[in-house]
Amino acid sequence: MTWDAGRALPWIEAGLFGRLRAAALPEWNSYVRHPFVQGLADGTLPQACFRRFLVQDYLYLLQYARAYALAIYKSDTVDDMRVAASIVSGLLQTELGMHLSYCREWGLDEVALQAEPASIELLAYTGFMLDRAQTGDLLDLLAVLAACLAGYAEVGARLAADPGTRRTGNPYLSWIEMYSGEKYLQLAASGIARLNTMAVDRGGDARFAFLLRDFRTTVRLEASFWTGAMSGPVESMTHG
Amino acid sequence: MTWDAGRALPWIEAGLFGRLRAAALPEWNSYVRHPFVQGLADGTLPQACFRRFLVQDYLYLLQYARAYALAIYKSDTVDDMRVAASIVSGLLQTELGMHLSYCREWGLDEVALQAEPASIELLAYTGFMLDRAQTGDLLDLLAVLAACLAGYAEVGARLAADPGTRRTGNPYLSWIEMYSGEKYLQLAASGIARLNTMAVDRGGDARFAFLLRDFRTTVRLEASFWTGAMSGPVESMTHG
Amino acid sequence: MTWDAGRALPWIEAGLFGRLRAAALPEWNSYVRHPFVQGLADGTLPQACFRRFLVQDYLYLLQYARAYALAIYKSDTVDDMRVAASIVSGLLQTELGMHLSYCREWGLDEVALQAEPASIELLAYTGFMLDRAQTGDLLDLLAVLAACLAGYAEVGARLAADPGTRRTGNPYLSWIEMYSGEKYLQLAASGIARLNTMAVDRGGDARFAFLLRDFRTTVRLEASFWTGAMSGPVESMTHG
Amino acid sequence: MTWDAGRALPWIEAGLFGRLRAAALPEWNSYVRHPFVQGLADGTLPQACFRRFLVQDYLYLLQYARAYALAIYKSDTVDDMRVAASIVSGLLQTELGMHLSYCREWGLDEVALQAEPASIELLAYTGFMLDRAQTGDLLDLLAVLAACLAGYAEVGARLAADPGTRRTGNPYLSWIEMYSGEKYLQLAASGIARLNTMAVDRGGDARFAFLLRDFRTTVRLEASFWTGAMSGPVESMTHG
Repeated sequence: MTWDAGRALPWIEAGLFGRLRAAALPEWNSYVRHPFVQGLADGTLPQACFRRFLVQDYLYLLQYARAYALAIYKSDTVDDMRVAASIVSGLLQTELGMHLSYCREWGLDEVALQAEPASIELLAYTGFMLDRAQTGDLLDLLAVLAACLAGYAEVGARLAADPGTRRTGNPYLSWIEMYSGEKYLQLAASGIARLNTMAVDRGGDARFAFLLRDFRTTVRLEASFWTGAMSGPVESMTHG
Repeated sequence: MTWDAGRALPWIEAGLFGRLRAAALPEWNSYVRHPFVQGLADGTLPQACFRRFLVQDYLYLLQYARAYALAIYKSDTVDDMRVAASIVSGLLQTELGMHLSYCREWGLDEVALQAEPASIELLAYTGFMLDRAQTGDLLDLLAVLAACLAGYAEVGARLAADPGTRRTGNPYLSWIEMYSGEKYLQLAASGIARLNTMAVDRGGDARFAFLLRDFRTTVRLEASFWTGAMSGPVESMTHG
Repeated sequence: MTWDAGRALPWIEAGLFGRLRAAALPEWNSYVRHPFVQGLADGTLPQACFRRFLVQDYLYLLQYARAYALAIYKSDTVDDMRVAASIVSGLLQTELGMHLSYCREWGLDEVALQAEPASIELLAYTGFMLDRAQTGDLLDLLAVLAACLAGYAEVGARLAADPGTRRTGNPYLSWIEMYSGEKYLQLAASGIARLNTMAVDRGGDARFAFLLRDFRTTVRLEASFWTGAMSGPVESMTHG
Repeated sequence: MTWDAGRALPWIEAGLFGRLRAAALPEWNSYVRHPFVQGLADGTLPQACFRRFLVQDYLYLLQYARAYALAIYKSDTVDDMRVAASIVSGLLQTELGMHLSYCREWGLDEVALQAEPASIELLAYTGFMLDRAQTGDLLDLLAVLAACLAGYAEVGARLAADPGTRRTGNPYLSWIEMYSGEKYLQLAASGIARLNTMAVDRGGDARFAFLLRDFRTTVRLEASFWTGAMSGPVESMTHG
């Protein structure tokens, strides 16, 4: 019997997000079942690829935090502002800290990470995300942040549940555990729930075509991010 | 028999704009039937008040053009971009030119206008408008620009139709003619039509409460703009 | 011997901020020596005025936090992002909490505060601040936030040092103590230091004329904020 | 004797732009002497590559116009607003029109162009440009628009002057003529002059390190744009 995302993570098929994911399912599966993910599952991903990914993912997190800062600015109520501000703090303290301590295990400290050049895949993804975030309202903003949030949860949960995932001697096991852990899954569930609520308040159904167009682009950019990490050294767009 | 806005300007009761105006009708009437308007109709408005209004209205137009420039940036299609760009050009060339030539009749040239301080009513209105324009999407943006566009049309059309409006020796007759002229009425009708179309595309019905909240604020700021012009010399916030 | 701001708060005459304050000294003194401040010092300010001020100041703080969220977005380095994010969290948790507990002593809880209408002075000030924050770079942004930060420190420090300030039975003593306390003065000093550093990095000297123009406007809007609180009940722009 | 950019286009070595170009000269030369350019000069560029370039360049122009719309919004004076608005109109009418008529010669009409997917190189470049445009002030904005404007002038002028450029039967001759024509060279010269003036007003010298960092990125993204066009069919990020 195959793993079923909707049974494992019921929130992943609910609300606006569920509709977006269903409508972009071919692209979604090219993302969450990307060869990079298979390489994590069986431990065959070359470590140089994973290290490249970690670097770009660190740089991505900083831009994600900038986009989320706009969610504070774009909030309509004090409560929304507080939620958004606590997520930004969480990203810049907890998440970035976790990411940095994880990177250190792979021999990458923060000074080294900051000196790394941005890849073209990173620039494309974060540029698109930040542009949508400024151009649209809070719903557009939360929608372009959703592919990352929910996709890593689906990848983590599936690999953790899959008996075929290699445990012994898999250098990527701790990564799988991080994204299938209760803490991350709750973060993802609450983020997606917030998007779905916002969709009700802000006419998500009528705006579905626009939202899907941009969501689909972010899903492709996620897959491209992994393809980029597997393609060899980054050609620097931003450094020396 | 009283003048009926919906009969004279059928577009004023249609679509999202019609709903917003109806829901904010008390505030709307305090705006379009403001004592300043009555003073234009019977020619009793002190000319110093009108001159103060012209100055602030010139400064307002510049900020309105900045907000409309964001509509180019926030457009989803090339056609929307072109429409928005031609409106911005129209504002900075035709409208500003008309405004300037009108101001010259009142002894105000552009150098003098630019040297004038912004009133607090102006800063409040344009600051609010520009903030909503950046914070929201294209629908939020067009909604906060609508009170000005449609209100001046309603004022112009009503005063022009009203047999009680003083014609002979009324120094404000040319102003009334400008805003009841075919050219301005078509501009207003097409701007409101665009807002109504955008409302269908972008979930205006579900978002009505948010849109009404901000629309109502702009309507009050319009009334306050006229009250300010009648209240005596501007206490400068921005000059000297 | 008169109180000397530069002796009491040496940072207030240093760097870009010192230049801005010196160049706008007449407006600055109309702000920090406003009749509202004198009414706090001798306890003669009508309590209804103070309560109106507290309400608007609460609403102001929320918009100030939105502007500061843009400082996270506009930061160039991770360290700048972290500093800005911790200030936003501080504003929405500590500062807002202090403000709320202070308001409760005056019979105002958060539900009541949120239901209060924004005054025209508030809209003018926060609209201008948010517009400059989006339009300019991080230096423009920090510059329009400075008048509030430093001015309250100067008012607090001067009133606390002044033997003429009434202590016994002054209902505003705790407010004076809050803004002359070590905690607030350090917050102000570090905020102004950050502005001055940013000015060096971002060409503040060459840009002085632009920065002064907008700084002067914020100083006048601060004075107007207090004038508004003393002028009688707020005419709602945003509610009911 | 070799062609000398500074002799042919004296403005290209002047002011802030001259400093940026000189400091990024290795990257600059990788851009303006890209194999794609050589392929235009000798007519050996495969036509499929050129057609891919034309498509992406059309999509680029739309995003460039969105960025320039922010220059209207970010202008400090009416005159700056008018200049920026006339450039936006020029881009959306004249430039886009020229581009479209040129594309039609290559069998691409506007409906076809709009249906084309954005490449990752396009998303990276325009996302970066729009992000810098919103994050920074008008100087930051004009600086990230300069590599495109000046680089095409340098390419056009050099190829037009080079006796080695193939004339007879070169399918790209009209492209070379367009970018070496008086009209385009004047547009580029006046755009760069405006950047240099803005640099004086807005502290460009002190901000040079920041400006160079972002300028260098845009120069690399220009080169990457041409590399992308030569690399085979676009993997769609945005369609289908």
